[in-house]
Order: sequence, then C-alpha cells, then structure tokens
Amino acid sequence: MKTIVPSLKGTRDFYPEEMAARTWLYQKLRQVSKRFGYQEYEGPMLELVELYAAKSGEELVNEQSFVFPDRGGELIALRPELTLTLSRMVAQRQRQLVYPLRWWSFGPFWRYERPQKGRSREFFQWNVDLIGVDTPAADAELVAIIATFFKEVGLSPSLVGIGINDRQLITAELEALSIPDELRPAVFHLIDRREKLPPPDWAAYARDLGLSDTQFTRLQELLADGELWKKSDSLRSLFAALEAYGVSDYARYDPSIIRGLDYYTSTVFEAKELTGDIRRSILGGGRYDNLLEAVGGEPLPGTGFAMGDVVITLILKQYGCLPPDLGKTTAQVLVTTFDEASSAANIALAMELRQAGLDVLGYPRATPLSKQIKFADRVGVNYILILGPDEIKNGVVTLKDLRSGEQRSLPRSEAIAELRKLLARHKSS
Amino acid sequence: MKTIVPSLKGTRDFYPEEMAARTWLYQKLRQVSKRFGYQEYEGPMLELVELYAAKSGEELVNEQSFVFPDRGGELIALRPELTLTLSRMVAQRQRQLVYPLRWWSFGPFWRYERPQKGRSREFFQWNVDLIGVDTPAADAELVAIIATFFKEVGLSPSLVGIGINDRQLITAELEALSIPDELRPAVFHLIDRREKLPPPDWAAYARDLGLSDTQFTRLQELLADGELWKKSDSLRSLFAALEAYGVSDYARYDPSIIRGLDYYTSTVFEAKELTGDIRRSILGGGRYDNLLEAVGGEPLPGTGFAMGDVVITLILKQYGCLPPDLGKTTAQVLVTTFDEASSAANIALAMELRQAGLDVLGYPRATPLSKQIKFADRVGVNYILILGPDEIKNGVVTLKDLRSGEQRSLPRSEAIAELRKLLARHKSS
Repeated sequence: MKTIVPSLKGTRDFYPEEMAARTWLYQKLRQVSKRFGYQEYEGPMLELVELYAAKSGEELVNEQSFVFPDRGGELIALRPELTLTLSRMVAQRQRQLVYPLRWWSFGPFWRYERPQKGRSREFFQWNVDLIGVDTPAADAELVAIIATFFKEVGLSPSLVGIGINDRQLITAELEALSIPDELRPAVFHLIDRREKLPPPDWAAYARDLGLSDTQFTRLQELLADGELWKKSDSLRSLFAALEAYGVSDYARYDPSIIRGLDYYTSTVFEAKELTGDIRRSILGGGRYDNLLEAVGGEPLPGTGFAMGDVVITLILKQYGCLPPDLGKTTAQVLVTTFDEASSAANIALAMELRQAGLDVLGYPRATPLSKQIKFADRVGVNYILILGPDEIKNGVVTLKDLRSGEQRSLPRSEAIAELRKLLARHKSS
Repeated sequence: MKTIVPSLKGTRDFYPEEMAARTWLYQKLRQVSKRFGYQEYEGPMLELVELYAAKSGEELVNEQSFVFPDRGGELIALRPELTLTLSRMVAQRQRQLVYPLRWWSFGPFWRYERPQKGRSREFFQWNVDLIGVDTPAADAELVAIIATFFKEVGLSPSLVGIGINDRQLITAELEALSIPDELRPAVFHLIDRREKLPPPDWAAYARDLGLSDTQFTRLQELLADGELWKKSDSLRSLFAALEAYGVSDYARYDPSIIRGLDYYTSTVFEAKELTGDIRRSILGGGRYDNLLEAVGGEPLPGTGFAMGDVVITLILKQYGCLPPDLGKTTAQVLVTTFDEASSAANIALAMELRQAGLDVLGYPRATPLSKQIKFADRVGVNYILILGPDEIKNGVVTLKDLRSGEQRSLPRSEAIAELRKLLARHKSS
C-alpha cells in the first residue's frame, strides 16, 4: 500500500466540521468586538525578525519562533504574536489615526513548541487592542470584552475566570524585599513559571537566581496575598470599573499573574479554566505603554490581549458550548440529474432555485437515481427534486422528502414557493 | 528622527479599510460557495516540501516558494497553493468522505515573486474544488460558480470573461504536428508564456525548443483557432452545460489557455479582465485527475480553481464595485464619560445598550466633552449620549445628534428605544 504524504507536525487539517467550529468562533469574536466598537484589521504573517528582537522576550523570538532567511538574505519570522505588528502599523500612521484607537483581528500564528493537547505549532489568535489611553478604565474595557465573550459562548463564571495583576505593584513589593532591579526580569520569569514547574524545581530555580531564604519565603507570601491589590490606586479603579461593567463575577485579583512577554508595563491579566481538566491559560494580555516608542513611533500607551483558538475550542467542546450541527452541509435541496437528455433542464432548475436564494446541490453525472438519493442522504440533504422527461413534458417536478419518504408531483412553477414553505417548517421543528 | 521598523517587502498591512474590503470579498465568496452547496475547509499553511515536489511544477516549488528547514531539519514550504493539501486531506479520509465532494476555502498563500501592481508575495486565495466526478458537467459547475461570483459582485460579461480549453485537445493537435511527447511540457510552458513575452522573444523561445518553422506557424494557427473546441466531445458538453447554467455570456473557448501547473490533465480555464488596464489573470483552474494518486491516495478525479485576492480587488475598485463605506466604524453611538464621579454610571449605560444589541463606544477617560465629541465626529459616530451628575439625578440622558447638532434630554429608560428608532431612520435615509 502506498503511503500518503504526511502533514507537518504541529499543524492541523480543518475538515468541514473543524472549520465550521473555527468559523463559528470567528463569528462570535467578531460580534463581541463590534459590540464594543472595535474595527477589524490584519497584519502580514511574515515580519522581519528585528521587529520582535528585544521587545517580545528572548524565549519567544530565539526559542519559539520559526525564523529563516528569505531569498534576499533577510531574516524573516513567521509571526509568533501580533502586538509588535500592531505597534508598527500604528507608528506608520501615528498622526492620521484617531485615538482612542480600537482594533481587533483573528488570524494565524506560529510557535515552535512541543505539540500537545491544547497546543499546536500553527494556531489562530483573537487579538483586541485599545491604543492611546493609559487609564485603568481602558484595561477594564478589555476585561469586559473577554467576560462578554465568555457569556456569549456560554461559559459561566463558575467555569472560567480572569486573573488580574499589576507588574508595578509587584515591582514595588520586590523592591521592598531588596531584590535588585537587574534581577526583576528573571524574578518575573520565575513567577510566571510557578504553575508550570513542580514545587521543588520551582524552589531550586529561585535559589539559582540568588534569592535568599527570607526573600523566597516573602515572595511566596506575596504570591498568596489576595488583598495586595488594595495598595494599588490603579487596580482599585480597575476593579471598580469592572463592577460598573457588571463583569466582576468573572474577574479576581491574582498576585501570581505576571505573563511571559517582556513588554508589559503594568496591568497584566490572564483567563483560565477554573474547574475542568484543561486548566491551561485561555488568553493573556496587559498594558504595554512603551511599545510604540520601541518600534520607532512617538510614545503612546496601549493595552490588549490575545486568545488562541486551541485551548478555548477544547473548553467549548468539553462544556458542550458548540452548536451540534457544525460541519453539516448547508445545502437545502438536491436537484438530481435524471439522464443526459434532461441534464440541461436539471441544471436550469437548480440555477433558478439558487437565484431565489436557496443553497442547492446538483449532481454532475447522469447516474441511477438510487445512487443520487443515497448521496443526498449521506450528505444530509432532505429534499430532492426530480425533473425527468415525463416531468418536463407535463410541466411538473417530483419532490421527494427523504425523512418521510413521501414523494409527490407539483407544477414546476410552484417548486420554489413549496420548498421555502417546507424549509421554514423544517427549521422551526 | 527615529525610523520605524519596516515591514517585509511583498507583504501587506490591512488597516481597517483594506480589511473591510477583504472581509466583504470573503462574505461574497462564502455566499456563492454555499449557494452551490460547497463546504468550507482549510489546510495548514506549512507543508512538507515533498508534498509539492514534482506535482505542482518545478517553477512553483523551486523558484517561487518560500522553503526553509525547520528546527527538526525537515524542509518546510509556506504553501504556494492549496490543491496538493486538499488532495492529501481527501486521501487521508478517502473511504469515509462522500462524493461528489464539494469544498471551498479562503486563506493566505505565499509566492516569492517580484512584487508589482496586482501581485504580492503574501496573498489570499479562494479555492473551490469538486472531487470524485470526471464529467464535463463537473467542470461546468465550477465555471458557473465563477460566473455567479462575477454577477454577484457586479462585474458584467463585458468586463470579465472566462477562457476555457482542454489540454487533451491541444495534445492531440501537437501530436498531429509531429511534436514529440517528451517536448509537450515545454511546449505547454511556451503556450502559457505567449501573452507574457514580447512576440520576438516568444518566437525565439519556440526556436530554442527545437520547433521547425512549419511547426511554429501551425502552432500559431492553432492558438488562433476559435473553432477548435468543436473537435472535442468534452468541450462540446461543457459549453452545452454552460448554456443551461445561463452563464455562456461569461465563457468562451480560448485555445491559448494552458495554465502553468503541471498537474492539470484536461479541462483548463482562466478568467481575465477584458477591457481595463489590468488585464491580468483573475483566477485559474482545471481538471486534475491524477493528483489523489500522486499524493498516495486511490485514483479519484478532481476539478477546481483558485482566485487570488489582489487582482480581483484592484478590478473591483476600478469599476466601483466595492461598497463606499468600507472601513467606517460600525459603532452606532458614543457614551461619553462626563467625569470620574459619573464614570460607573456611564459604563453601565454603555453595557445596557450593548446587551440590547447596539454597537457602542465608550470613552475610557474623563476628559472635556468637546474632546469626546470631536473623537466621535472623526471616527464617524453620529449619536452621543451624555450622563452627567444632573442627568443621573433626574433619571434622564442627554442625546446629541452630531449631524443636526440637535441635543435633547429624554428619560434614561427610553434611550434604547429612541436610539433604535433614530438608527433605523438613519439607515433608510
């Protein structure tokens, strides 16, 4: 037996059923983004690697990105994230754009990570960003968008939650522990790894960084201090705004949220599954007030988040939030091909139905009707129209209902109206 | 002045206006594809290079594809086309899928070509394929889909046309000219280049291939013979079917259409602009009856086409077929932030409107109203709601119409109904 050329590890094939799930997700994201007045945009999928260098964090660029030289010799990256592209695009038109600027996007990204459940090397991401305002109210708007999305897809606050923190608050606390400034990025990384490492490995990591026993103990207390946010004016404003948005049930303070990207300057947040088996991060985001400058623009604050499609789709499946008929054909009727002689009449009938707004399958070969009916049945089309020589002569069509097995003749001129009636009834039943 | 990190040559930034045009195109493609009963699918954007090797043609793989080794050492291609991926996906589930199988897709592709008007290195493609049937009626269905798309977007048969040919017919004619079999791929390439090369260069190319003066003269006659199709049973059936579809006005026989991909086995077709400045190929397709086998599946015939987004978008713009308001905000109202004290009430009002299905902008900072009104004006939002301390006290909101300048107070509880009424009127005016 011959072998089929394999697909690349970490990529996914979207057969109609998986594609329908992705499109359903896209329509939900689109609806929520629009509801908050965001506009859809998209960047290139290839960027010069220098765009990411020293801004997204070394791990992302050096270890997790697909990077290669193009034929002209320049180093290209398959984009691992969108915020740098967004910053570049805003910087390019910084004076013409109107602020607060609200943009959203849904497209493919690539990271070279070990494929596992909830993770692929090629994935899709919903990106939502608000540029030009540095208030807690701006951060709150993004958290409200996330909560609205969760509500919209049927994920209640008992299933998913959004943890929120402020890097400036943690920075101040680390300073109080006499942890030197130059160690801060490493300690942020340590905090970010806490849930990903076994406790002894995590403690060893902390010692390797040079934290004293006291510092380590205090750090652990810090990361368990659910009241810490009260010290922060901006977090107090943020939680007050979330109250006004009516989404407090999804949001909580979490001092251990720090996020992996280097460019976040203050607010950071992350959504997770609270109860199920997956427990992976669903999405993450935060405030990046230095990024426009870092790509060559004028200083301009920004805040935003990104949600991959893989984890959220697993969760939506797990809780039965996806519609049951995803991937079923949308075709409403099959116009059969009775024989070669009537083929033109069959094609013309199918086109008439399409022009009337119906989704119609033809059968592109004259073959026994039994075979065509079997095809309709397997594809999931319920109504069949037959227009053979007898029907043509008498100005009628034969309409067959595959579920009831009923078959009857009606004037050809009434076919569209009759189908519409049946489909409306079918839909409501 | 600092320089902004540049984007990669041959890629495009989709600011909201360009993105809206792409989304509009996607919705049209989607509608036409569904109307003919096609299901949406998608493949990976990265494939092993061996998938394309010796099937798509050497030029496409060796000269025009982005190819690079991944971290595991395997050679990866950024997909230059979708038909090989489609064939692989069908081969993987060949026994479970139902035929005739009808799938469509819209996604990104990459080719390393010189960027110019109507061509970018990163582009989007609409792919439509019908697998499992080898009849002219199947090819005709695809041509009918293309013609229906043209009608749907407002491109009449006087502006665009679909040229159709059959490689088997041309092969038989080349045999009659005693052009040896092994030269056929080269002569196909020669035919494909005719419109792209100046006539003397094209003649020189023909001589270089070893064609005699007689063969060259006969080849030129052949490529001008508009009646040649009558010799072909399958083309006669195809044109008869197009008549039945009611799309003959878009279709014509063109003996010089051969297409660049190696895998086409018989029918080939291509759509072009007929009159304007662009005159580039809009889309191309054909029948590929050996491809399933070539990727390791059982033999299964197929036919399909692909349309890039770049040329069609240029043409749609040229003929004014794109809606005029693409890229304008969809937001219908701005809820201002009067001051810090009323901020929570403003947020709550905005959320109420959103829950009622309106697209609503908030203003995430307490700032002078004049600035917020200027923002609404620049973004293109017509209605503004103001809820300051006085309004809160009196249970009212102030509604301002930016076009008329009119401003009035109404009970807060009536805001949603009133806005709906105004927006419905606005829409119909």
